[in-house]
Amino acid sequence: MTGIVLGDNSYGKAECRLLRVDRAADQHQITDLNVSIALAGELAATHYSGDNSQVLPTDSQKNTVYAFARDGVGQIEDFGLRLARHFVDSQPAIGRARVTIEQYDWTRNGDAAHSFTRGALTRTATVTCDGAGAWVVSGVAGLTLLNTTDSEFHGFPRDRYTTLPETTDRILATAVTARWRHAAAACQDWARSHGESVRHLIDAFAGTHSLSLQQTLFAMGQRVLAHRPELVEVRLSLPNKHHFLVDLSPFELDNPGEVYFAADRPYGLIEGTAIREDAPPAGPAW
Amino acid sequence: MTGIVLGDNSYGKAECRLLRVDRAADQHQITDLNVSIALAGELAATHYSGDNSQVLPTDSQKNTVYAFARDGVGQIEDFGLRLARHFVDSQPAIGRARVTIEQYDWTRNGDAAHSFTRGALTRTATVTCDGAGAWVVSGVAGLTLLNTTDSEFHGFPRDRYTTLPETTDRILATAVTARWRHAAAACQDWARSHGESVRHLIDAFAGTHSLSLQQTLFAMGQRVLAHRPELVEVRLSLPNKHHFLVDLSPFELDNPGEVYFAADRPYGLIEGTAIREDAPPAGPAW
Amino acid sequence: MTGIVLGDNSYGKAECRLLRVDRAADQHQITDLNVSIALAGELAATHYSGDNSQVLPTDSQKNTVYAFARDGVGQIEDFGLRLARHFVDSQPAIGRARVTIEQYDWTRNGDAAHSFTRGALTRTATVTCDGAGAWVVSGVAGLTLLNTTDSEFHGFPRDRYTTLPETTDRILATAVTARWRHAAAACQDWARSHGESVRHLIDAFAGTHSLSLQQTLFAMGQRVLAHRPELVEVRLSLPNKHHFLVDLSPFELDNPGEVYFAADRPYGLIEGTAIREDAPPAGPAW
Amino acid sequence: MTGIVLGDNSYGKAECRLLRVDRAADQHQITDLNVSIALAGELAATHYSGDNSQVLPTDSQKNTVYAFARDGVGQIEDFGLRLARHFVDSQPAIGRARVTIEQYDWTRNGDAAHSFTRGALTRTATVTCDGAGAWVVSGVAGLTLLNTTDSEFHGFPRDRYTTLPETTDRILATAVTARWRHAAAACQDWARSHGESVRHLIDAFAGTHSLSLQQTLFAMGQRVLAHRPELVEVRLSLPNKHHFLVDLSPFELDNPGEVYFAADRPYGLIEGTAIREDAPPAGPAW
Repeated sequence: MTGIVLGDNSYGKAECRLLRVDRAADQHQITDLNVSIALAGELAATHYSGDNSQVLPTDSQKNTVYAFARDGVGQIEDFGLRLARHFVDSQPAIGRARVTIEQYDWTRNGDAAHSFTRGALTRTATVTCDGAGAWVVSGVAGLTLLNTTDSEFHGFPRDRYTTLPETTDRILATAVTARWRHAAAACQDWARSHGESVRHLIDAFAGTHSLSLQQTLFAMGQRVLAHRPELVEVRLSLPNKHHFLVDLSPFELDNPGEVYFAADRPYGLIEGTAIREDAPPAGPAW
Repeated sequence: MTGIVLGDNSYGKAECRLLRVDRAADQHQITDLNVSIALAGELAATHYSGDNSQVLPTDSQKNTVYAFARDGVGQIEDFGLRLARHFVDSQPAIGRARVTIEQYDWTRNGDAAHSFTRGALTRTATVTCDGAGAWVVSGVAGLTLLNTTDSEFHGFPRDRYTTLPETTDRILATAVTARWRHAAAACQDWARSHGESVRHLIDAFAGTHSLSLQQTLFAMGQRVLAHRPELVEVRLSLPNKHHFLVDLSPFELDNPGEVYFAADRPYGLIEGTAIREDAPPAGPAW
Repeated sequence: MTGIVLGDNSYGKAECRLLRVDRAADQHQITDLNVSIALAGELAATHYSGDNSQVLPTDSQKNTVYAFARDGVGQIEDFGLRLARHFVDSQPAIGRARVTIEQYDWTRNGDAAHSFTRGALTRTATVTCDGAGAWVVSGVAGLTLLNTTDSEFHGFPRDRYTTLPETTDRILATAVTARWRHAAAACQDWARSHGESVRHLIDAFAGTHSLSLQQTLFAMGQRVLAHRPELVEVRLSLPNKHHFLVDLSPFELDNPGEVYFAADRPYGLIEGTAIREDAPPAGPAW
Repeated sequence: MTGIVLGDNSYGKAECRLLRVDRAADQHQITDLNVSIALAGELAATHYSGDNSQVLPTDSQKNTVYAFARDGVGQIEDFGLRLARHFVDSQPAIGRARVTIEQYDWTRNGDAAHSFTRGALTRTATVTCDGAGAWVVSGVAGLTLLNTTDSEFHGFPRDRYTTLPETTDRILATAVTARWRHAAAACQDWARSHGESVRHLIDAFAGTHSLSLQQTLFAMGQRVLAHRPELVEVRLSLPNKHHFLVDLSPFELDNPGEVYFAADRPYGLIEGTAIREDAPPAGPAW
């Protein structure tokens, strides 16, 4: 029998749910996070023989998340960098640390000093550090968009299995998962970078007269890169949430683009990337 | 063997996903619904012998939802009333129809004429009709609220199994599911009634100095009834989404109400009702 | 303004996840539960004024679940009775306690003494106690069944919105949620009662030539009652998981009952009850 | 501004739910699948300008799944190969096709000819074809395992944030997601290969005295490769489903490894690979 060896591997604590309350000002601030850690390095011994001398417990990683939060969290990209660098710097066996953070969106209730309502969006960050450097990817999830017009789909090839009619006016809807890579592991204003990137995604979706969801996808990524020089690559995953016009003719009714069935499955899934030609290498960023 | 007979029963089509687009104005409007129907009546024959002569197919019920939408949907309470009355009036065997509708929240993207982003809230309505009348229950789901202070919990009995310390300052968080019963099956302005009810729920949550989640719950229901004379009863289901202060002392750190662990399970579940003393009977409303 | 008062209410700890390991024998046994508690009684004071003197903390309820498990869990109906009676007997303000338990299904891995694989079924029990007595409802969830033939649907009324063709051969599939009420709060063998009830549900589904899902539903409930004298009522909730024959004619293919699309939404939802004519009153059992 | 160009991209129809019934024998057979397709190639035109001349509609891809099923599905690896090769061979612009299939597990009800119950396991396959070749990855999901003993964790490094005590006896539980790569895109008996691989995973989990979940993970992958020469690489993702011994001392009870709290989040996540030293390149297999 050929030798069987350890290949790619990592380990860590996943989904540490952290709420940080900042009570310094009269109006409290909250930061609501889900933090996951994945460490990689010289971990063969525990796999081969259960020698844990290089295995910092995932429980310790969790404790680190909460202890670091005592000093404040700030922007999730910075918090991820602090955590990732800590593990690489303090654990000799760990060559690479990846910290993935979801931040839930809360809005202050009116002018209440201490009360909040949760929204639909999730801000995300994935920070990866190794001995050579650090990479920061920011993103968004839970962004569901819909256009009622300005979407066409035609001119496609027709094979034996094609029955789809061409259309010059359809509903276009998707639940955006987007991630964008920063040129550097530092940013003057992570919050503004994120907010503007989300705004550009929405504006591009809303403003693009679409001949295909692929065209809309690229327009969204391109728009973000065109306006945000600190970013070099945008990856988008866009399910095509089909809305089918209902045939009401059996009931002697027309249906001039008014009544639709919103389908669950199957759905189209369009994934693509907009990238600068001179983007630095992504390394282990993704 | 004793006779075994048919007891309570109903049937219908559940979760008809309907998007209605109103293109009459320059700015399009959308109504995004999930409609479920449950019919009850003289349905013993199909249960006992498979005689379907009184069983309007659930497929026909689905078709009815889409066909009725051709004339416009309007407020979900009205749409539910139209549908429920139709089934009771047109099907001799059907003595009671219940229509449950979820409406998803979409916000126009800036001043875009045709583009929308989905929010976190769900507006709900349950309409029940029988030969004697109609009952309307409106509600909300997906409303997640959090207060960072003004919440205490103490003075509770301590039995052998009580280890919980008393507290005069804790996080209070919940995901509200609320439903409120209308005095009549008609309303001058369903949309305003709903919007104001949700606002009062939030205001009462934010503004109540809480000694227990039960107190907050009743304050929420009471506030809605106090301001909305068209309503007679509010039912609330409030999970107590526990946030535990993390003990950072092993790391030689204090934690003055800043770093919390957001727990999943178990959770407290507080359910209660605020009702007018002279509320008309609920009948089959719930 | 009319007086606004407290209506129906309850509170308790929900979803206490408990694994009990019995290590007494060479082969370990495990009991994997999700326990939820809901207490009701004289709880107006906490709702009106935050007076918690009658509010046993939900944290104490959770502790009780784990402490009681120290003596062994046994059958979930018995464990529910122990817990429910404890709260009613020990808390003066509590007039009614309901304990809902889910038990996850684990199978021993071969003849391994200490190793298990989890299955798809969930055994359920809801135990309700008040001063007058105790009621036990057992049940099952996660039981997904499918027949490839022996299912017809025809003879139904046709209204303006009916387009469904009649069929004499269709797929019948459902995800069973069933609950059955015991005549008394004691049973010689809860485990056998449960196992046989599930077997009868499956046998009735498999063995009934179905003219409607309603007919199958009643046959399932009737079969359980006919064979289990300790039970008096069976409630079933059966989504009709539609499988649509795909029209392959555009590809010059026939489809003699071989290729189906399994749809998600909408779905039919059939709910019904089989009950003995002389069943004792259900009281607060459900 | 630097040029912004299209990077990695693919598109296709996701989650085509297909039930195939084989009625040839007296006992029917069923194959219940969820099929997803992702195509990549010369697709820049649609992204840049909405030129769809190379974009076979995802609707056509869905039709292809159902049409191909008319000839029988067989093993999912073969069905995936048929589909993936079809798209690469018939669409000039498509250089690579990936077909991902989930197969749900159904067991015949006793000796019923036409009736089935669904189980917990999901069999998976990912087939990737390009002009150069084809790669087949099989796998399993939904396999939840638990050992009540023979699991230790100690000898780990302790940093400032480490509070975890060492243990020589703990519960070990995980929900296995495993995928294994075949040496070639052909197999004498895919079904046997799959069944035996799952059996070896379970046997290795049950039979390994574990000093870390990493050790168990590698033992599982190694066992599969040691017994299945047709396979060259096994990737495992194992959440460490923590079960915490409950401290019952406040209730004056001991807890000799009997009462556990099953936690949800956070959880450890252990991911790793066992691979043959002479494994052929994975190419685009994963």
